[in-house]
Amino acid sequence: MRKIKLIIAYDGTDFHGWQIQPEVRTVAGEIKSAIEKILRHEIHLTAASRTDAGVHALGQTADFQTDNSIEAGKLLLALNGVLPDDVAVKSVEEVSEDFHSTHQSKGKHYRYVIRLSGIDDPLSRKYHWWYHHKLDVEKIIDATKFLTGTVDFKGLEINSGKSDVETVREISEIKITNDADDLIIDIFGKSFMYKLVRSMIGLLIAAGNGKIQLEEIPEILSGKNEHRRTDVAPPHGLTLVEVFY
Amino acid sequence: MRKIKLIIAYDGTDFHGWQIQPEVRTVAGEIKSAIEKILRHEIHLTAASRTDAGVHALGQTADFQTDNSIEAGKLLLALNGVLPDDVAVKSVEEVSEDFHSTHQSKGKHYRYVIRLSGIDDPLSRKYHWWYHHKLDVEKIIDATKFLTGTVDFKGLEINSGKSDVETVREISEIKITNDADDLIIDIFGKSFMYKLVRSMIGLLIAAGNGKIQLEEIPEILSGKNEHRRTDVAPPHGLTLVEVFY
Repeated sequence: MRKIKLIIAYDGTDFHGWQIQPEVRTVAGEIKSAIEKILRHEIHLTAASRTDAGVHALGQTADFQTDNSIEAGKLLLALNGVLPDDVAVKSVEEVSEDFHSTHQSKGKHYRYVIRLSGIDDPLSRKYHWWYHHKLDVEKIIDATKFLTGTVDFKGLEINSGKSDVETVREISEIKITNDADDLIIDIFGKSFMYKLVRSMIGLLIAAGNGKIQLEEIPEILSGKNEHRRTDVAPPHGLTLVEVFY
Repeated sequence: MRKIKLIIAYDGTDFHGWQIQPEVRTVAGEIKSAIEKILRHEIHLTAASRTDAGVHALGQTADFQTDNSIEAGKLLLALNGVLPDDVAVKSVEEVSEDFHSTHQSKGKHYRYVIRLSGIDDPLSRKYHWWYHHKLDVEKIIDATKFLTGTVDFKGLEINSGKSDVETVREISEIKITNDADDLIIDIFGKSFMYKLVRSMIGLLIAAGNGKIQLEEIPEILSGKNEHRRTDVAPPHGLTLVEVFY
């Protein structure tokens, strides 16, 4: 059996997220059916990240197995010919049979874009969170220190239906860039629990707008101060930029 | 009577262009009805440019008259509250009564973006023309010389239903930027006839892909070589960036 690795980009606006669900349009559903149409056999598609509804990707990674001997370059062209406009396969590569998109991921890069201008821009509105209130960027940068390194995010856990979720995660870097009208937050980490990136952004914004104080963050993270828990940032500002192997 | 000047941004994707037409969604239609809803009287809306269906704007300029004494800042907020997500008013300003968006424009800046990568990007596909064939950028730069200055564009005239259209136009600058995957073409000119910017882009691309030779350009422009006439570039790569007064 051949193992095929795909790198995928999509505009999450019109998808109910990555994961296949009955009767709704999902990214995995579109890709699986495109592959099956071309290869004429059923496949099982595994991905690095189950991005939520509305979340975008420039470098989602997925894999599947096939006995078909189609050349990688031909499959790439065929897939982009069949797929709808809001999803594109950027690369197709044959990898060793033990490759696994989820388990072998060494890390992920997520980017969250916050538009700070007084008026939203109709041309990029689907790819940023328009946040037209005052933010103290220095406070946000200070708050990132609490979220970097080996951190127990127990207080940010959201019930995903799974039990015994590991809440201790490795966040290697959070980079804040203040670029004209945009605040760009790049988060690099080994792995993330359900909605963790958007929960981290929500917490950073709460630090920046004064809703919470920096010294409250450890209590919020530990879950000891549930009534100070912050909001989850909206999905459309988030993009999965790259998965590292 | 007060004269009010608006600067407007829009995502042209879901509009049948600027100009009001019966039974279709147009930018002017949305703005006129938003203003009339707020000011409770009929208005006449004049704009600098009648952008085509699918063309975007960051700095379209329009004006209208009113007797209402509403403050500019309040009208700005009210308009953005009423307008749909794909159009935004960026500024509202009271100007002198003899201001006219069309006649007093000293020039316009249009930007056309061509995506040159082998695979299109689902996140920006609505704002560029994905042109994945080989282009000789040097040839395009050479071709811009024929389109700059005082130029008779008779050969690029498209029947707009108007007669006696002035085909001699002043193009002050065409700037080509090759930015990673994108070829960005910035065109600055006093005024443009119907679909002229997209016709100019079509001609530049034909020079870049070898469909026409540089020495053919004068004949094409003069209309003496109609069978070498080039295509009009698609609308979604075009944005009206700014109107100068």
